[in-house]
Amino acid sequence: MLSLTVLLLMTLNPVLTNNLTQEIDVLVFLPKNNSFLFSQARVAPAIRYAQHALTAQFPNFHFSLQLQDSDSVNQAVFALADRSCERKPDLILGPVREYEAAAVVRLASHWNIPVVSAGALAVAFRNKDSEYSHLTRIAPSYMKMAEVFSAMFERFSWRSALLLIEDDMKERDCYFTLEAVYHVMDDYTVKSLTFSEEEPLRSDEILQNIRDTEVVIMCAGADRIREIMLAAHKQQLTNGSYIFFNVDLFNASSYGNGSWKRGDEHDDDARQAYASLNTVTLLRTVKPEYRNFSIEIKKSTDRLGLRDCSDCGNVNMFVEGFHDAMLLYAVALHEAMKNGYSKKNGTEITSHMWNITFEGIAGQVSMDINGDRNGDFSLMAMTNVEAGSYEVVANYFGVNKTFQLMSAFDSKRFMIKGRHEANPELPQ
Amino acid sequence: MLSLTVLLLMTLNPVLTNNLTQEIDVLVFLPKNNSFLFSQARVAPAIRYAQHALTAQFPNFHFSLQLQDSDSVNQAVFALADRSCERKPDLILGPVREYEAAAVVRLASHWNIPVVSAGALAVAFRNKDSEYSHLTRIAPSYMKMAEVFSAMFERFSWRSALLLIEDDMKERDCYFTLEAVYHVMDDYTVKSLTFSEEEPLRSDEILQNIRDTEVVIMCAGADRIREIMLAAHKQQLTNGSYIFFNVDLFNASSYGNGSWKRGDEHDDDARQAYASLNTVTLLRTVKPEYRNFSIEIKKSTDRLGLRDCSDCGNVNMFVEGFHDAMLLYAVALHEAMKNGYSKKNGTEITSHMWNITFEGIAGQVSMDINGDRNGDFSLMAMTNVEAGSYEVVANYFGVNKTFQLMSAFDSKRFMIKGRHEANPELPQ
Repeated sequence: MLSLTVLLLMTLNPVLTNNLTQEIDVLVFLPKNNSFLFSQARVAPAIRYAQHALTAQFPNFHFSLQLQDSDSVNQAVFALADRSCERKPDLILGPVREYEAAAVVRLASHWNIPVVSAGALAVAFRNKDSEYSHLTRIAPSYMKMAEVFSAMFERFSWRSALLLIEDDMKERDCYFTLEAVYHVMDDYTVKSLTFSEEEPLRSDEILQNIRDTEVVIMCAGADRIREIMLAAHKQQLTNGSYIFFNVDLFNASSYGNGSWKRGDEHDDDARQAYASLNTVTLLRTVKPEYRNFSIEIKKSTDRLGLRDCSDCGNVNMFVEGFHDAMLLYAVALHEAMKNGYSKKNGTEITSHMWNITFEGIAGQVSMDINGDRNGDFSLMAMTNVEAGSYEVVANYFGVNKTFQLMSAFDSKRFMIKGRHEANPELPQ
Repeated sequence: MLSLTVLLLMTLNPVLTNNLTQEIDVLVFLPKNNSFLFSQARVAPAIRYAQHALTAQFPNFHFSLQLQDSDSVNQAVFALADRSCERKPDLILGPVREYEAAAVVRLASHWNIPVVSAGALAVAFRNKDSEYSHLTRIAPSYMKMAEVFSAMFERFSWRSALLLIEDDMKERDCYFTLEAVYHVMDDYTVKSLTFSEEEPLRSDEILQNIRDTEVVIMCAGADRIREIMLAAHKQQLTNGSYIFFNVDLFNASSYGNGSWKRGDEHDDDARQAYASLNTVTLLRTVKPEYRNFSIEIKKSTDRLGLRDCSDCGNVNMFVEGFHDAMLLYAVALHEAMKNGYSKKNGTEITSHMWNITFEGIAGQVSMDINGDRNGDFSLMAMTNVEAGSYEVVANYFGVNKTFQLMSAFDSKRFMIKGRHEANPELPQ
């Protein structure tokens, strides 16, 4: 029955053979503004790198890229509508930011255009049944990150969490990040406190709420995290009775053993306070091809004077993601065409991007059945309090939901001091 | 200089004379769902009535109407984008609801298409400098209604207000209505309390807040208003020390002398409580042409079994507004064409709809310099407490910001009992 359908379609679409050149229009929504880690100047070189690499594997695919600034929802929607009235693009890459992505993905889904983004990470986008049907997320969403916490809560028998969220009311990265944690923590007692960047730290309220919980999960700027940790340390809350986390997904170079250090009189207290702080971040891999890619991309951005960090060898998740988006789309288009469908069948092409595993630039990329990338994360902790230095103590692999414990892992670190005595019914 | 420009344009556009037929595509965004006062079945007859009436005045204007369901933001935006890819409409009528209107007006403004709506009443739409540049509001916005309050506050030397808002988190009519009051009351002390339809009345909190204020302004369903008034009455807060208002813009037939009455054991208390309640509503006019129009429209809706009220002679503000939208657009198009512009020049046509006064179906319509209709409102109060019957005690005319006091007006009603003694410095 299937083969008959395929045959029929191939007869109806006789031009769709793999030997004919396919002109593929790619509309790329990325901001020109270089204050974003996913600006055009940073990400476009990676897309072109992929475009070049694909010529060997798919010589008949000719990608033409059109870069579109996406600095506001209106700009993005108007561009898509204007552009699509003449000729609809075959593929949309981006937008990254939630509000632009929501508007663009809705219209693109309505028009049967596949969208692949290394952003659109918020919880809402997992609903692919209706308005986000054509969205494939090539970077691990906030929900995937949140799984790390639910897995730890189960493993270590924690019961309650306090979410501390710095919300800028613009990008809202931290809000959307911890919103996902809130979503996956149905089985636990979870409270949240939100504050703005500008307002002074509401220490009393925060410390009181910490006292009422076991695990504190923070998403905030580095200075605010330090301020909270110092306040907690002053009140002896960093003595092991509470477990602290911060989430640091994008600024992969800005956290780590230096984040407590400011060269001020609080450095020593901060170092001791950070001994209780664990950081959840993206797992970074280092296969040889990735090195070459990374060096090439850095050359491009260096030429533009965009040195994001002097000491980091890796490009960021967005750069990597949009590269892999091109690979994934090419494979899916190839599969769809083999089955007799044209490049205009966005639903069909999208379905071939979901529920598969492929070799991305940094390592294996596993897409779940819902078109969202499974995420691998690292857990970092201070392993030398004297030096104040950090190490990865565990990795979490989303595809099989397992932890890999490193030699530096110390399970005592994740036991809540004094709790088991008070709650003898809990597993030891 | 002006005449030269006009001459030049007329030479460039030689076809644009008033004698040639103009095919005018009108895309009408109204919901099919008859639970809305502005459903297609209710409003379309009024648009057709205007269309018919215009053939005499502008025989060369041929309007063709396309009705588009607008039950969700996505549906509205997709329809506009799809439709406009083939051929852009010349005029958009609607949408009414804020979220649909925001999305449609943005895209229409970008495409230089005039939009006239009897909705889009929220504060945000007054910003015509950027994304809502092509929006003309043919019904008085919430800001215009709010002027009535700021005018009363000034006249009666009130100083503080409590806004009680029932927010359904869907249409959000009450939220948007009192948001406007909040905006115009910069010079006064204003607090607001929001509650949902479902939650039980938070009497203690509400009564405490009433005690801290002078004027209570409510927007809520009729039952909730009654509940609040009964609670206030029980605590002797309806003795003249506080002045109560509710806002009733659309259900012009459902308020009035019956609204305290439920046929239950609280009717007597409610009647006494409502003696302290004043209602701000739209001023209704009764010129002879309006009677004919109203009868015609009611015939159409009666045929569909849509009897909105058995005792009311008037159609609602949306029906009237969309009728007048057609008149206003036709006059503006005529003006623009006289000046040598085509029907595709949305900016020019829009400018001719602003800052003018014309004769609408119910009376004079005055559009302000910002393209928003000036509003006329009535203030109703219980003038016979024994009978529990209401009368209009004052009218407010937005165009010159004046009150007209009716014979039933009693200034004592608007004096806050006991306040002037405590504040001798205030004008008596």
